[in-house]
Amino acid sequence: MSKQNHIVIIGGTACGPKAAVRARRCDPSARITIIEQGEDLSTATCGLPYYISGVIDNEDNMVAKQPDYFEITLDMEVLTGTRAMSIDPQAHTVKVMNIENGERSTINYDKLVLATGSKPLVPDWKGKNLDGIFTLSDIPDANAIRDYLSDSENKKQVVIVGAGLIGLEMAEAFVTAGCNVTILEALDRVLPALLDPDIAVMLEKYLREEGVNIVCGQRVTGFQGDENGRVRKVIAGDTEHQADIVLLSLGVRPDVALAKDAGLSIGSTGGISIDKYLQTSDPDIYAGGDCVENINLITREPVLAPMGSTANKHGRIIGTNVTGGREAFPGVLGAAIVKVFDYNVGRVGLNESQAREAGYDTVMSLVPSDEHATYYPGSRGFIVKLVAEKGTGKLLGGQVVGMGDAAKRIDVLATALTFGATIGDLADIDLAYAPPYNSAMDPLHHAANVIRNKQSGLARTLTPAGVWKKLENGDRFVLLDVRTPPEWQEQRIDGEQVRLLPLQELRRKINKLSVDDEIIIYCRTSVRAYQAQRILDGAGFKNVKFMDGSLDAWPHGTIPASTD
Amino acid sequence: MSKQNHIVIIGGTACGPKAAVRARRCDPSARITIIEQGEDLSTATCGLPYYISGVIDNEDNMVAKQPDYFEITLDMEVLTGTRAMSIDPQAHTVKVMNIENGERSTINYDKLVLATGSKPLVPDWKGKNLDGIFTLSDIPDANAIRDYLSDSENKKQVVIVGAGLIGLEMAEAFVTAGCNVTILEALDRVLPALLDPDIAVMLEKYLREEGVNIVCGQRVTGFQGDENGRVRKVIAGDTEHQADIVLLSLGVRPDVALAKDAGLSIGSTGGISIDKYLQTSDPDIYAGGDCVENINLITREPVLAPMGSTANKHGRIIGTNVTGGREAFPGVLGAAIVKVFDYNVGRVGLNESQAREAGYDTVMSLVPSDEHATYYPGSRGFIVKLVAEKGTGKLLGGQVVGMGDAAKRIDVLATALTFGATIGDLADIDLAYAPPYNSAMDPLHHAANVIRNKQSGLARTLTPAGVWKKLENGDRFVLLDVRTPPEWQEQRIDGEQVRLLPLQELRRKINKLSVDDEIIIYCRTSVRAYQAQRILDGAGFKNVKFMDGSLDAWPHGTIPASTD
Repeated sequence: MSKQNHIVIIGGTACGPKAAVRARRCDPSARITIIEQGEDLSTATCGLPYYISGVIDNEDNMVAKQPDYFEITLDMEVLTGTRAMSIDPQAHTVKVMNIENGERSTINYDKLVLATGSKPLVPDWKGKNLDGIFTLSDIPDANAIRDYLSDSENKKQVVIVGAGLIGLEMAEAFVTAGCNVTILEALDRVLPALLDPDIAVMLEKYLREEGVNIVCGQRVTGFQGDENGRVRKVIAGDTEHQADIVLLSLGVRPDVALAKDAGLSIGSTGGISIDKYLQTSDPDIYAGGDCVENINLITREPVLAPMGSTANKHGRIIGTNVTGGREAFPGVLGAAIVKVFDYNVGRVGLNESQAREAGYDTVMSLVPSDEHATYYPGSRGFIVKLVAEKGTGKLLGGQVVGMGDAAKRIDVLATALTFGATIGDLADIDLAYAPPYNSAMDPLHHAANVIRNKQSGLARTLTPAGVWKKLENGDRFVLLDVRTPPEWQEQRIDGEQVRLLPLQELRRKINKLSVDDEIIIYCRTSVRAYQAQRILDGAGFKNVKFMDGSLDAWPHGTIPASTD
Repeated sequence: MSKQNHIVIIGGTACGPKAAVRARRCDPSARITIIEQGEDLSTATCGLPYYISGVIDNEDNMVAKQPDYFEITLDMEVLTGTRAMSIDPQAHTVKVMNIENGERSTINYDKLVLATGSKPLVPDWKGKNLDGIFTLSDIPDANAIRDYLSDSENKKQVVIVGAGLIGLEMAEAFVTAGCNVTILEALDRVLPALLDPDIAVMLEKYLREEGVNIVCGQRVTGFQGDENGRVRKVIAGDTEHQADIVLLSLGVRPDVALAKDAGLSIGSTGGISIDKYLQTSDPDIYAGGDCVENINLITREPVLAPMGSTANKHGRIIGTNVTGGREAFPGVLGAAIVKVFDYNVGRVGLNESQAREAGYDTVMSLVPSDEHATYYPGSRGFIVKLVAEKGTGKLLGGQVVGMGDAAKRIDVLATALTFGATIGDLADIDLAYAPPYNSAMDPLHHAANVIRNKQSGLARTLTPAGVWKKLENGDRFVLLDVRTPPEWQEQRIDGEQVRLLPLQELRRKINKLSVDDEIIIYCRTSVRAYQAQRILDGAGFKNVKFMDGSLDAWPHGTIPASTD
């Protein structure tokens, strides 16, 4: 590239600085200017909940690189505290304003990069500007929440509106800070954009155990404050929730104001339209990070993917392409992982609901499992849900929830999904095994094999929700518990349909069951239940299934035994 | 399948029981017989080092399923304490002997499964039968070592012969038991079949820090005992090593005696030849687990893969296929993970040496990295080495060593390798990100990008071994440290060629360097060194490289600064 190439980058959080650094490495002589409204570049916004909780106790840790690094080491011009006001694509100029003194100026560019990020979504609710109502998207937001929390009067009741990723991370942060936390979610479950109901419900059960109050299906309508203008109540229709602090975590929307005003194409999702080279509808303007729309690699449909990981990948590609390169970004899989107290919650690809919406006929497995060999100490459990296309067995997505190492399994699934793996492919991947790290069969192998067993007709199941419905309806069927008597004593499903017949006695006492009964079998994880189903199949029973995931995936109450 | 199908399985550790259970699930009416020499079925042999160290304290934990489970619950015949003596493929019979009473009998089969496993390799060394010399492959071996250790006189000096997976796991077990441990390895490094020298040397450095004495390049020639027939010395040519306990961990070889006698094809690796359906040269005889040879998915060459994970996958496929199914096993990638004290050591695919042997022109990256966002507490480091094919960028393999979460990265690489990923594919996989789990760019993304930078000519490097050689040769060049003065004070490479010029001052003080000098740059992880290389490139320097992995991958000594 010639020395004249002037690259101007608007936005200094993740995609912008990454694009700048990459551009500098690709072209040591380019002129590079970064425009950022705030005071910092390269901020670790994904860490803000941990900064608020005090897990990260120093604000300096939230800034990866000081402006000096960009200016002195990398020979760039850095305009912090500066707002980009408008773009003139024809003239190749950006009008900017110094926020402190209001001074305006015009910057010429050869290549422009829009990394304008996203803004928290805030509906026009009555009272939304009361003191004590926060959103969280940058360091000033985080400091405001920290300050408010440090006033002991504000510590009592926290209401988090929106059970998305930030809402759940902040639930932990507020509990850590000594608050009582209620999460209000308008939809029917936590992480509704990410998890299926059968996985979300297990997370909700755990959150309640951790003392978090979860209220789903309630739409906020406004807020009430006190005489000092401080929030005191969250109003949701006829219901009120006491609140000293409110966090609005309803998700984000792409900040496309500049792009829209400049006449760039905006996609159906509301993000800036880009091609695979991250070029906007103007070939001299690139865009990346939270402000653009991505392609979902499974559906090939446009989606929003406001993730720091994606923003960094975008930044590198843009840095390459604005300096004469030609790299393409393939797309995203909606991978997400979140720490919720001691639970690891991850998902990638399409969940069952999304897959059906996308027109897939699905088959799924719900598999409670240990993260590594149970005989090696310290193994923690989780539930794996895999979703595949019926017939082809094409893997569509996965969800993992529990204390075990979910992140590893999500990343393996992300990799498998990238290459269009089938369930059969997944079942045979040579994953590394040693007792401290895994079982000889990885939980993903096991979950894939359950789907293979369903596909081949060996395994027939009913979901926990399906079993619950039958119990509620008072259906006549046998809910057969095939665990041991001590397990049965400790905990079992309540219902007159429930009967105990341990697996090891099943063949001997098989005549206690009738071949014409509808029988649904459960154990703890479904391994024994599946075995029992096959034994009954072999004995000529005609209407036998087992419950997906069994007791470990049962979100409802259980009873302790009285006398048996 | 008809009721007459009699499946006879020889071997009860991993593949055998898995095949039996799967066969029963596929065909509830098949007749299934398991023949096992030992007393237990389904033993957790991979956990034996942890049973010896006491991390697993109960022998019962080493047996996953009791014979009762197979007999009563699953309706099989279990012949423990029974040795298969010979097979007559024409007659479809197996001759067996009850080990206790010597009684012999003949069993007919329709389908025979060989899961005969492997045996520890023991050369015909003088004195190899002395008391105190052990191998480790089953529970009786482990109990023998435990008993010997419990005699306090035997606790002093342990010599482990062979620095393979079991040797390293046992080094930790013996140190935990209070022993002094020396590892003798005939080849030039630890885990020589798995790791490249540049990774192995970092593990050796760590093992020495943990107090383990590592001696590479010494071939054992024999042993000397005392008057009680107890081992006292290991002899390696002219060298002697005091030894109260010796563990021979030289690897295993497939136990193919029965197969060979029956006239089945044995492969070039010494394992039983099987096709992708795990059928031997006799279509009614299947084989799986340690006794067979596998196909390496990258080279398509036969290899041995004596791993519990592979044995279980084999078992499931065999169970399917002996009951009328037709499933194929694709092959292996040589995935391995091992805990060595607090280090996690993993590898998959081909290492650089293996890739070159297989005829690939290779390009590699050596990348020290943190396991997750550094600003989130508790992040541990590791070194990632990726190997790819020059030109095509096809991923060939990866190695990870350090305290960080290596297992996740190995499993992602295993998945990517399964699908023939390129380095470019790897760099853009949508891996899940949140600060407790990862950085916005996963270390694998970073390592893949380093290779892309090398491929595109942006990054030019020399290995630590190459730099060491230049220092030893007294070559004239500048070894440029671009870290900060405090880092330089704390630790730096020793040599008259070494100079400090911090990255942030590089542009300003660039005239302190000569454009014609040969300059090799290092920092801590190579991120700054690469940046410095690009700055010097841009300033017209002609002969600049950086050192792969920099100080974090430097296995040699460093000096503390005196005065600067």
